[in-house]
Amino acid sequence: MQGSVGVGPVKAVPLESEIVDRSTARRRLADAKTGYLATLTVELRPHIVPCCFALKANTLYSAVDAKPKRTPDLRRVQNLRANASCSLLVDHYDEDWTTLWWIRIDGSGRVVENMDEWSVARELLAGKYEQYRTTPPPGPVLAIEIERWRTWP
Amino acid sequence: MQGSVGVGPVKAVPLESEIVDRSTARRRLADAKTGYLATLTVELRPHIVPCCFALKANTLYSAVDAKPKRTPDLRRVQNLRANASCSLLVDHYDEDWTTLWWIRIDGSGRVVENMDEWSVARELLAGKYEQYRTTPPPGPVLAIEIERWRTWP
Repeated sequence: MQGSVGVGPVKAVPLESEIVDRSTARRRLADAKTGYLATLTVELRPHIVPCCFALKANTLYSAVDAKPKRTPDLRRVQNLRANASCSLLVDHYDEDWTTLWWIRIDGSGRVVENMDEWSVARELLAGKYEQYRTTPPPGPVLAIEIERWRTWP
Repeated sequence: MQGSVGVGPVKAVPLESEIVDRSTARRRLADAKTGYLATLTVELRPHIVPCCFALKANTLYSAVDAKPKRTPDLRRVQNLRANASCSLLVDHYDEDWTTLWWIRIDGSGRVVENMDEWSVARELLAGKYEQYRTTPPPGPVLAIEIERWRTWP
């Protein structure tokens, strides 16, 4: 599949859905301004944070940005270093419940160490978020390799 | 603390925040129409779904409702039966990033078995969501006992 947002062997990744087609799922994920990232703490508790992200082929990129943080070495980074399993959800809420939807990807997360990939990720994020063009994210960049798509309804 | 949404020994539960006070945190959580519930699968992967919920004292209630589901015995229910650890997040997104916030609670989840509690929970949910007054949720009700609050910024 080729969409308006990156290209790649997306068809190789399982998509579980009875209703939403791949291109719609991909567009909804790519366009969402906020994703909800679930990881595991080292104590094996679920952890969840909202995050900004950008999609390229089968990879999601998210940066630790300049929004105020308690520490630059965030829990989400610690979690992914210890356990790569993660899940990211985007959704649409409306008072008309017949219009609701969500998209979830399960994947494997890592901290981007390669400087070329880091630069590409930051460019993607700046392309999607005007705020990053003014204030580039100073922190680590996370990459999530998508292993499974799940859509609802 | 007593707020507009239930009463209870809320002060006994740790709140980690440097900026947001307890009553603001509680109001933001109680008023949010969508929460993002993270649980663990039996394979110890993070799992995340959006859900409707209502707050009473230190307990969040969420029902498996009539929105289309693949199976009545949802993954979130299976997960909590196997591992009670869970986390629920609500957030506010805006293009003006100076106005962003989120509230997260970590807690212990269970399926409500007591019919009195089940009735109370359904009444709470119907009080918050007009949609539940028209179509009461037919499925199991989940209860999450809040053990920790975390707010941002």
